[in-house]
Amino acid sequence: MALSIELNRSAKRSIYRQIAEQIKTQISTGRLPAGSRLPTVRKLATDMGVTRLTIQSAYGELQADGWIESVVGRGTFVSERVQPQTLHSSIGHCLTSDGILSDMFEVNKVIGVRSMAIAEPDSDLFPLDEFWASLTRLRPKAAELFGYTPPQGDPDLRVEVTHLLRDMGIGTTPDDVVITSGVMHGLTLATQALTQPGDAVLIEEPTFIGYLNILRAQGLRPIPVPIHADGPDLEQLEQLMAHEKPALYYTIPNFHNPTGQVWSLAHRRKILALAERYNCPIVEDDIYGLVSFDGSPMPTLRSMDDGNRVLYLNGFSKALMPGLRIGYMVVPEQHKEDLLRLRRSNDLCGSGLNQRALAHFLRDGGLKRHLRRIIPVYRQRRNSAMNALTRYMPSAVTWARPKGGYSIWLTLPRYFPPGELYRMALQQGFVFTAGEAYEMDQDEEFEYLRLCFGNQTEEGIWAGVRLLSEIVRREMVEGGRRNGESLRA
Amino acid sequence: MALSIELNRSAKRSIYRQIAEQIKTQISTGRLPAGSRLPTVRKLATDMGVTRLTIQSAYGELQADGWIESVVGRGTFVSERVQPQTLHSSIGHCLTSDGILSDMFEVNKVIGVRSMAIAEPDSDLFPLDEFWASLTRLRPKAAELFGYTPPQGDPDLRVEVTHLLRDMGIGTTPDDVVITSGVMHGLTLATQALTQPGDAVLIEEPTFIGYLNILRAQGLRPIPVPIHADGPDLEQLEQLMAHEKPALYYTIPNFHNPTGQVWSLAHRRKILALAERYNCPIVEDDIYGLVSFDGSPMPTLRSMDDGNRVLYLNGFSKALMPGLRIGYMVVPEQHKEDLLRLRRSNDLCGSGLNQRALAHFLRDGGLKRHLRRIIPVYRQRRNSAMNALTRYMPSAVTWARPKGGYSIWLTLPRYFPPGELYRMALQQGFVFTAGEAYEMDQDEEFEYLRLCFGNQTEEGIWAGVRLLSEIVRREMVEGGRRNGESLRA
Repeated sequence: MALSIELNRSAKRSIYRQIAEQIKTQISTGRLPAGSRLPTVRKLATDMGVTRLTIQSAYGELQADGWIESVVGRGTFVSERVQPQTLHSSIGHCLTSDGILSDMFEVNKVIGVRSMAIAEPDSDLFPLDEFWASLTRLRPKAAELFGYTPPQGDPDLRVEVTHLLRDMGIGTTPDDVVITSGVMHGLTLATQALTQPGDAVLIEEPTFIGYLNILRAQGLRPIPVPIHADGPDLEQLEQLMAHEKPALYYTIPNFHNPTGQVWSLAHRRKILALAERYNCPIVEDDIYGLVSFDGSPMPTLRSMDDGNRVLYLNGFSKALMPGLRIGYMVVPEQHKEDLLRLRRSNDLCGSGLNQRALAHFLRDGGLKRHLRRIIPVYRQRRNSAMNALTRYMPSAVTWARPKGGYSIWLTLPRYFPPGELYRMALQQGFVFTAGEAYEMDQDEEFEYLRLCFGNQTEEGIWAGVRLLSEIVRREMVEGGRRNGESLRA
Repeated sequence: MALSIELNRSAKRSIYRQIAEQIKTQISTGRLPAGSRLPTVRKLATDMGVTRLTIQSAYGELQADGWIESVVGRGTFVSERVQPQTLHSSIGHCLTSDGILSDMFEVNKVIGVRSMAIAEPDSDLFPLDEFWASLTRLRPKAAELFGYTPPQGDPDLRVEVTHLLRDMGIGTTPDDVVITSGVMHGLTLATQALTQPGDAVLIEEPTFIGYLNILRAQGLRPIPVPIHADGPDLEQLEQLMAHEKPALYYTIPNFHNPTGQVWSLAHRRKILALAERYNCPIVEDDIYGLVSFDGSPMPTLRSMDDGNRVLYLNGFSKALMPGLRIGYMVVPEQHKEDLLRLRRSNDLCGSGLNQRALAHFLRDGGLKRHLRRIIPVYRQRRNSAMNALTRYMPSAVTWARPKGGYSIWLTLPRYFPPGELYRMALQQGFVFTAGEAYEMDQDEEFEYLRLCFGNQTEEGIWAGVRLLSEIVRREMVEGGRRNGESLRA
């Protein structure tokens, strides 16, 4: 059958990846169903005026990802493992923050779906050789590392984390560091340590959806403060601290998730001053802090805090590899015993092998080398996403340029009924993070969505943004007509 | 200096290990302080009438464990790393279940202390070669395994767990299995799924101290039911179920921790019948189920349940290696969504690498081979512990012979003031699990202690039991005099 493929022959964009991504789009949208025969390499190369090697590379990538299969003597076919139909029955039906988080995991890496829903690094960029070497050198220590690990974390890793923190302007000792099974786990423990069920907790709106799930699981009452480009609305923050007596304020000052924004230095100072005035502990989530594209990020609240008021969390899921499941907390003295008690009562301790391997990887400079290698790549992906959005999105859609992290927060020009855009995109084999996940009240209409660019090549970003833009453009008109909605201001 | 060492020259007990353990005792009790010079190999061999090779083996083991050091040309000395004095300042001051759990981790493997406090397998018996081979074969899958793992657990591991469960008489599908970061983590999630803060929870008295910590962390009200040799007191169990309306009943029917006992088949049937009559979910902890010395354990409650009433938990910390941090739950359909939601909100997901390596290890028959190898060793250790207790303990002290697991539960002939025996033993460089950890009210006097034999050689068990027996014998009299206590019953 004939493939309809358009190429952008600019020097910067890889031709074979453009071809591969456009074939993916045709597969995921169902235009090329499972079992369809693809043109031969020779034929497609001739049709498109490219070399056979280019087509071979495109087919090779699609085959490696499992989207197509070659049968010797018969030809190349769309894989039978492409399964958008199975997915449609289980995905997109529960629009709570947890339902959508569950969807993210279900569709991630499913063959036949292009997912820009998870703010994760690209596994093709993981420093596997170097990390594996750190890991396999631990064979002589295996008997120790497969025993119970100290609940506070491997001592070697806590030393290395202290060095990493020092480079980030945070002076501390291994004694004040608690290793957790990822930042999410640290947020669970920190929140439990600082609250009683029923307490009010100040959060930014929007904020990390995992944190909304933590608040729900612990029976806490979220109090949202709106955010602007340079931080939370300070007037409202003060009023809420004064009147709601929140047990803590959860903030993401660097490369805020989902908006990608950075709180200004003035805002940081004011946040700390308010926290002191109203005696409100701050839980600072800096998970994207090291994924910084345009120079150094701002100093952390923890590094500016002289009052032991900030509980600082960070980890290695975004800057390194999420599957390590390693995060860490820098814990004010007055909360340390409670946090260790809660860690012991939650899951006892972590896995010594991963922790020690990471310690050696850090000690040997592996993280710094890795960041030097990947930051330019992700910066380019951010730039591609910006360019593709400018090129394809209706002009009424707006977004900010993220200076770090993997998320772009889009504001749509009208409200949409829950689930509408999300299910529409799913039918086209495409997933973003549904804006509904960020709503406290899931019956409300929504006007936002998050697009993650970390795990896609530049060509994948162009193809994904283009598809999403088409859906948004159509639904801005069609959806409105169907539902009698009016355009938003 | 002269060492005072007595040997038991029976064929079954290793001479060199007896010597090593007695030197350890003299070091840990402070009779041989750090820096003391030990006799030369030649001199000690002559004094004791053994070969030089025997002494070399004993010194070699002590050196490998870090207790002594050789300095070329100067001799052999007790290591400066022996640190009972540092410990005494931080250990034994908080006698809550969490305080004592914290102590266990602090003193475990500290040079200069013999710990029989943790119910853990011996790291010298870990199947390291085979497991390491499963792990390192995963290099080609590393990019996938260092990404986010499904929150329910690695699909390959869930398949293998299903096969393992089938061999244990539990028919289930990978869909009903949830992988957790150890059984403790599973208990946290299961309890959270089945309760609201303030709920009553039925537990056995005594029970796993980690579970007491979970109840405290979640704001739940423990309702203890006394246990006899064959299970919980059924009359009281019924009354408590009827009147307290507990949210769940937490039970350890196989090789109960800490008593080592096994619930009879009749008790199991009755427990299930009561659970049905009073509509009380059962949380069954089978973590020691595979560590069975005298034939097969009883059928699990889960395998006898036809009502979807039992949430079954097991894992690999006791039968394999605790540092894997891998447990699993078999989840009744009606609780599955809640459990997955709580898992996602707790720590998002586990480590894919450990999970997949374990899946391959299980698939290749590694666990079965391992159990065939270790069960006879642990059976011998149980036997040694029984023999040593009979030989050394005052006859008024009682205990039951455990048929599996790593714990022996001793009943003392009088009540002791909190902390007394425990700190006394610590001063002698010896740790057991303080009975205080099992008391709901830490101000109460206590009459129990737990002794764990899994991580000690037979010679270590003999030396430890002997030391403990001396302390108990002395304190039965002295402690009573000091405190004006009367003997129990």
